Amino acid sequence: MEQIHVSADFIFGTMATDSRRLGYVRAELAGISHRYRMEPSAPKAGEPVRLFVTLGPSITADHVSVYYTTDGSEPAGQRGQSAPGSAVAPGHRIASQWDTLLWGYAEEWMIELPPQPTGTVVRYRIEAWLSEGKGSLWYSEVIGATEGDGSVIGQPGPGDHYLREMGAEFNLTFYRRPRTCAYRVGDEGTPAWLDEALIYHIFVDRFHPGPGRQFADPPTPMGIYGGTLAGITAQLDYMASLGTTAIWLSPLFPSPSHHGYDATDYYSVEPRLGTMTDLQQLLAAAHDRGLRVLLDFTANHFSNQHPIFQRAISDPTSPERDWFIFTRYPDHYVSFFGVHELPQLDLDHPAARQFMIDAARYWLEQGIDGYRLDYTIGPSHDFWTVFRAAMRTVKPDCVLLGEAVDTADVLRSYYGRLDGCLDFLLLQALRRFFAFDEMNASAFAVFLQRHLAYFPTGFALPSFLDNHDMNRFLWVVRGDTRRLRLAALCQYTLPHTPILYYGTEVGLSQRRDVRHADGSGHPEESRLPMLWGEAQDRELLAFYRRLGAFRRSTTAVWRGRRTFSHIDNQHGQLAYTCTANGETWLVALHHSSQAGSIPLPAGTWDIAFVTQTAEIVAGKVWLPAYGGAVLRQLS
Amino acid sequence: MEQIHVSADFIFGTMATDSRRLGYVRAELAGISHRYRMEPSAPKAGEPVRLFVTLGPSITADHVSVYYTTDGSEPAGQRGQSAPGSAVAPGHRIASQWDTLLWGYAEEWMIELPPQPTGTVVRYRIEAWLSEGKGSLWYSEVIGATEGDGSVIGQPGPGDHYLREMGAEFNLTFYRRPRTCAYRVGDEGTPAWLDEALIYHIFVDRFHPGPGRQFADPPTPMGIYGGTLAGITAQLDYMASLGTTAIWLSPLFPSPSHHGYDATDYYSVEPRLGTMTDLQQLLAAAHDRGLRVLLDFTANHFSNQHPIFQRAISDPTSPERDWFIFTRYPDHYVSFFGVHELPQLDLDHPAARQFMIDAARYWLEQGIDGYRLDYTIGPSHDFWTVFRAAMRTVKPDCVLLGEAVDTADVLRSYYGRLDGCLDFLLLQALRRFFAFDEMNASAFAVFLQRHLAYFPTGFALPSFLDNHDMNRFLWVVRGDTRRLRLAALCQYTLPHTPILYYGTEVGLSQRRDVRHADGSGHPEESRLPMLWGEAQDRELLAFYRRLGAFRRSTTAVWRGRRTFSHIDNQHGQLAYTCTANGETWLVALHHSSQAGSIPLPAGTWDIAFVTQTAEIVAGKVWLPAYGGAVLRQLS
Repeated sequence: MEQIHVSADFIFGTMATDSRRLGYVRAELAGISHRYRMEPSAPKAGEPVRLFVTLGPSITADHVSVYYTTDGSEPAGQRGQSAPGSAVAPGHRIASQWDTLLWGYAEEWMIELPPQPTGTVVRYRIEAWLSEGKGSLWYSEVIGATEGDGSVIGQPGPGDHYLREMGAEFNLTFYRRPRTCAYRVGDEGTPAWLDEALIYHIFVDRFHPGPGRQFADPPTPMGIYGGTLAGITAQLDYMASLGTTAIWLSPLFPSPSHHGYDATDYYSVEPRLGTMTDLQQLLAAAHDRGLRVLLDFTANHFSNQHPIFQRAISDPTSPERDWFIFTRYPDHYVSFFGVHELPQLDLDHPAARQFMIDAARYWLEQGIDGYRLDYTIGPSHDFWTVFRAAMRTVKPDCVLLGEAVDTADVLRSYYGRLDGCLDFLLLQALRRFFAFDEMNASAFAVFLQRHLAYFPTGFALPSFLDNHDMNRFLWVVRGDTRRLRLAALCQYTLPHTPILYYGTEVGLSQRRDVRHADGSGHPEESRLPMLWGEAQDRELLAFYRRLGAFRRSTTAVWRGRRTFSHIDNQHGQLAYTCTANGETWLVALHHSSQAGSIPLPAGTWDIAFVTQTAEIVAGKVWLPAYGGAVLRQLS
Repeated sequence: MEQIHVSADFIFGTMATDSRRLGYVRAELAGISHRYRMEPSAPKAGEPVRLFVTLGPSITADHVSVYYTTDGSEPAGQRGQSAPGSAVAPGHRIASQWDTLLWGYAEEWMIELPPQPTGTVVRYRIEAWLSEGKGSLWYSEVIGATEGDGSVIGQPGPGDHYLREMGAEFNLTFYRRPRTCAYRVGDEGTPAWLDEALIYHIFVDRFHPGPGRQFADPPTPMGIYGGTLAGITAQLDYMASLGTTAIWLSPLFPSPSHHGYDATDYYSVEPRLGTMTDLQQLLAAAHDRGLRVLLDFTANHFSNQHPIFQRAISDPTSPERDWFIFTRYPDHYVSFFGVHELPQLDLDHPAARQFMIDAARYWLEQGIDGYRLDYTIGPSHDFWTVFRAAMRTVKPDCVLLGEAVDTADVLRSYYGRLDGCLDFLLLQALRRFFAFDEMNASAFAVFLQRHLAYFPTGFALPSFLDNHDMNRFLWVVRGDTRRLRLAALCQYTLPHTPILYYGTEVGLSQRRDVRHADGSGHPEESRLPMLWGEAQDRELLAFYRRLGAFRRSTTAVWRGRRTFSHIDNQHGQLAYTCTANGETWLVALHHSSQAGSIPLPAGTWDIAFVTQTAEIVAGKVWLPAYGGAVLRQLS
């Protein structure tokens, strides 16, 4: 086999090393931490809500006050007195907690807010203050960064020391500011269709150039290959053949880049991808086939070429100047991870917020079915709460999925605010077990069990094996499709909606690693043009079609109560049973370079699905190297 | 003023740096962690007990079982089956918890044990196991160390990686082993007399040589100065004049050292300190004056010259060989922090346990009133639970105080097992605020408030400003008795029993720092001989007498509900009110090199106690530099 260089995953960039995780944890614990901890976590009408707030060891306060509104306005107040139009609720100390890392006591507070009718958006701010003394401290968040020297600007906080260390490592200056939080009472929860969905993820420029047309051949993968909306429309039956029930399109607004995450207009289609008519035709054709269409939507930032930003920096008196956070007007401003070309909007500014909500409403009105929300952790939870309420009024069953590459705590904090989040934690575990061999079977089983138990029922965690920002799975396993199939079988037999990244099903890989030898990152390598015709791995494609059909027809295998019946670290084996509707299924995964067997629980079993082959002999299922199977209990 | 070198405190050695704390936290979280978390934390007859256990991210288990006994025998069992004489209780998963530091999920389990009658000692062991698979893992603890290379021996655990790092830093090899836990039902709680006590801490060789005798003048402070029990007896009235209600004597068993923490016999008095008759006379004279006597007792280790250890190493067949943990007989064994001269006893071995309990019972039978227990974290909680029960049968109101230089979590874990622990956390904060100027007034106030709230009522946390293992307070403040008085006022107006280290009250300081310029540690510098006669600072002594009398006569000032009425970081000011029995008192502390004033709450106030002088003018109390006062509200 050809020697190829495969780099380790670099998914959780700001938390990739021990010291960064430590800095992250300390920055969080040192300040006022809240992370939207509340009971109930998605309140219904008539339920009081208890908010939980922790003060770090160095925070001096003998009062915690929460100012809130129920009419959509900004809550305000100070030192226990609410401003007109706001109400105030007092906090109560509930416990001291020792923190060895920070070597001091944190203090846990609880604040109860009264019940509200369905549909109320409760917006709130948290203040910690000292009855004797001057200071009061507001719950704040790092809301963005500029290129910089590791300093922290905006509201000073007790965790700044740790932020500075991280900022220095990334050449960033963090900007921190008090933040309004929010929740919506009586949220309707996740639309039912998402539960049974299977999502196909398309990078629009790279999927299909349109009937009778060929991809271009740009000198680098950062160039334009010429995928179009018409090309997608032409291949809807192809996607349907994979069991697909929804497609997610990478950004399609006008933008100077091949990827589109830097829009210059939120109300039209990038001309090289097609026209509004093309999009209408795509939507109509998709809906005819029962396929939903999700757009990729970036609310956090847009291109510095966007006319709004251009007006903001060219006219100091422009009201749009306040849509951004200038640290030194007009050249220094908060941007996506300090990238100058991607100015970040202040979506807590009413006009900027309204602009972004209007834009998202507009596309729902055009017929799209929901959004994958880029860089969800940028805008505030308050923004997303209001955003979701607005989207629901246009299309009650639209779906909003967050892209939050962050800890499980953070993912869970979107419960009641979004329908779910892309599951980067599962992605990492799937790749560590099935592709990188960095995790053994028991560690993977433990992860799965605890991970699935951690999130509330109804919070969607769509799963995936790869995406446009990392090495494709097939590249990592050096083209070994047996390993891809095995991982895909696991993915498709877990409870959450699978996402299939275009090309994965036909053997699309890369020419080189996303991290070149010089250390530079080139995610474009994972966005090579789709394979069509003879270039496709037909056997792999047939497998993915079988797998999609199997998932759709056999809901008990992923919906059921999951029990691990077998774990063997030495042979890389894992088996779990799922029971639902009186059916019992067994998923047997044999992650080993040698053939082997997995013992079956008592009863009679029948083979229902295989990644390659399988045979039942003497109470065991025999599998080839990197083979997997699903069995059904007959009695 | 003379330039002197004062080193920073080095109290929490194994947790003195960020990286050590991180290692400590990770080693704890990675394994099976329990730390005696239970509800209720001190169970009464008829109450079921819920134990809480957390499994680290890498621990694979689908069952947690607790094996327990109620007849004092060792609990045993495996994989859910209890051994004869033991019972088993199953665990229930209650939650997944995300841990960012370890980047994975921990899992919280709960195990309920049935109610038991008063006096029952419930001993238990915790096992985590996997129904499919071979391994089971036992709750274990690091129970000691040998000199070494940073390896970990005994039961392997998921946190060993972090232990190894720490071990390498200290040239230790840690020894880890499954441990039996225990609690006692219906513990009587802390004897009432401790609550109002004031303890005088005597380092016996350094206090008084006896009537008509002089201290010797050894070449180094590691030599013998000649303090005796008779000297102490002769000075009981002196101690009583300080408000003392109990004295704590440093170890007085035979030992090759000046300090005695390395006993060679647990049944006699070190001859140079006196005879058994001298001790009886001391006890009688003390008790005549209403003074109780606490001995310093080291259960964890003794001298390698002790006959038991000598027999153990000279006779391989000796049953006493099993009283120790030999990693390579006879030269390598677990010892106090790897120090070869101090072999550690395995107090979970029945005979060794009985020996140590018998020895401690013996001295109670001779009339002593309790123990300060050296290096409490060495022996198991199981040992201390049984130890306490045994001591209570001899003397129901004896007091057992732990010396645990560890986190607040660890201190709290002795609730229901000991009467309290010496408060090293408060010591650190008092010194950081009043001596080192490393903490500002608000941070100190926050610490005090949360620290006092963290521990259950009835758990004693005796306070102190210095002891025999660190620079004396007066040395740190370069002889400035104003600062010592101010800190002492704070100490004496807090709720827990104050301890006064001999000599502190008469200006005894040091000749040089406990850390010499070459980096070596010399705690003996804080054990210089007591000053008597003209050498005493009579003004300071008079202050301490007033302070002791004030504390004893004015219980409301330390017993009351404490509210911080004033905090001023700029001027180093802190004031708290205490209200009890209809009285309201205010303690005003002015930690500043300039005179200043502290505003008084509404009402009429009268000055009741001053460290120097104080004056009320225009609703404020005016204080000199480093001055403090207590005021009483008249209306």
